[in-house]
Amino acid sequence: MKTDAYRVKEGKKIKLAQWATDEDGGLDEKDAKLLTKELQDKLFDWQERLYAERQQSLLIVLQARDAGGKDGVVKHVVGSFNPNGLHISSFKVPNEEELAHDFLWRIHAQAPGKGMIGVFNRSHYEDVLVTRVYDMIDGKTAKARLQHIRHFEALLSGNGTRILKFYLHISPDEQKQRLQDRLDEPGKHWKFNPGDLKDRDHWSQFTSAYQDALTTSTSDAPWYVIPADHKWYRDLVISQILLDTLMDMNPKYPKITFDPAEIRIK
Amino acid sequence: MKTDAYRVKEGKKIKLAQWATDEDGGLDEKDAKLLTKELQDKLFDWQERLYAERQQSLLIVLQARDAGGKDGVVKHVVGSFNPNGLHISSFKVPNEEELAHDFLWRIHAQAPGKGMIGVFNRSHYEDVLVTRVYDMIDGKTAKARLQHIRHFEALLSGNGTRILKFYLHISPDEQKQRLQDRLDEPGKHWKFNPGDLKDRDHWSQFTSAYQDALTTSTSDAPWYVIPADHKWYRDLVISQILLDTLMDMNPKYPKITFDPAEIRIK
Repeated sequence: MKTDAYRVKEGKKIKLAQWATDEDGGLDEKDAKLLTKELQDKLFDWQERLYAERQQSLLIVLQARDAGGKDGVVKHVVGSFNPNGLHISSFKVPNEEELAHDFLWRIHAQAPGKGMIGVFNRSHYEDVLVTRVYDMIDGKTAKARLQHIRHFEALLSGNGTRILKFYLHISPDEQKQRLQDRLDEPGKHWKFNPGDLKDRDHWSQFTSAYQDALTTSTSDAPWYVIPADHKWYRDLVISQILLDTLMDMNPKYPKITFDPAEIRIK
Repeated sequence: MKTDAYRVKEGKKIKLAQWATDEDGGLDEKDAKLLTKELQDKLFDWQERLYAERQQSLLIVLQARDAGGKDGVVKHVVGSFNPNGLHISSFKVPNEEELAHDFLWRIHAQAPGKGMIGVFNRSHYEDVLVTRVYDMIDGKTAKARLQHIRHFEALLSGNGTRILKFYLHISPDEQKQRLQDRLDEPGKHWKFNPGDLKDRDHWSQFTSAYQDALTTSTSDAPWYVIPADHKWYRDLVISQILLDTLMDMNPKYPKITFDPAEIRIK
């Protein structure tokens, strides 16, 4: 499966309206899930190599609108990895101590160590998204922050971290349906946050802020716009990108410093 | 399935030699794995309640000798949880800053927040095990540390954290076989650490140190001695204890503060 079409090219500002939210790759749910399962079995093996090698890291950044599927990707894609090698960080509204520092301070502390797969469920990009939409920062600050983000990500990638940034792209109708489901199904009530409706009222401002954020796509830290109306297609595409990336990183089992044939266990 | 027999009673010092390592519950591997899968599907649902409720935490402490199966439990049992609600900590040899503090300082920082399941892959117990066996601390210090551990665990449990401590109990022969496998199979070489053989030479001293550590078993923070020669039985017993514990904690979906029928999504 080819995923290049979902990748945001470096140095180009895109228009999200031109990117499909409802692609399905010509597959149905059942077939897609089987394919995803096959990919994830391979991901599990590649993760072990990454973990054993301890020379490189993978950082997965998840961004989306409310009900866009961030938690679903953690559950259904990230959940297929061995938790021993995972470092998951969910970034909420910053607390007082975090606000007393630059916006990358708390993020940097959660960067994955060598051998690890880090997952940011929301990320430093919130600091140019929600903050920008609600005028907590002005355009000049947002622009400066985007530049700080580019430098920060270059620091990580220069140290052996591959960064994959996923924007889970859903339509306004799909979001409406998912929010309505949370109201209609008692088992999902706890997921509903009345504040999400306020963000929904600012749909086009968020689109604009995301389009700015997506300009930070580089070869070392690419953005992917994932068609996410179909959850099973979203999971398939992300699994494929993860596998392609891990294979390209090509971690190797470390050379051993002992001769197995010479060791006798008493 | 009953698991009480594996629980260390409060106020009693046990002799590990009297606890079986090779129990299989009269099951074979295939049946045990099916049962484990059923339990884990239930665990996944109970974890969601715990996460949604955000009032309690569960802390799983894993201790074992080398090749005892700590990583296996994380992979095969903990791996069945939703990673969104997991906080996994692997404690290695303490670094300079950690050594400049009391031994619980770095541990406390990793305690699971409300709604979360924390996993300690090794733990504060190393500070009364490996340190004691190699005479880095004396008996008096070890005794004082055990008392500090009791107080620390009481602090966590008083704040809504249930603590489950698992000692994965394997025989010397089983350890020998597992270490030999790591030498014989190139794909497992990276797991072999020549230093493990030194610990093996101190088998009985470790037994003695573990027996002291296991005296910290209380109703709020019980120790379980898990028969771990059969990996599939180990995973089944732990899954059952986790499920019984979560059901006993009985987390509930939170009451909502809005009327779903009154909300209109535009």
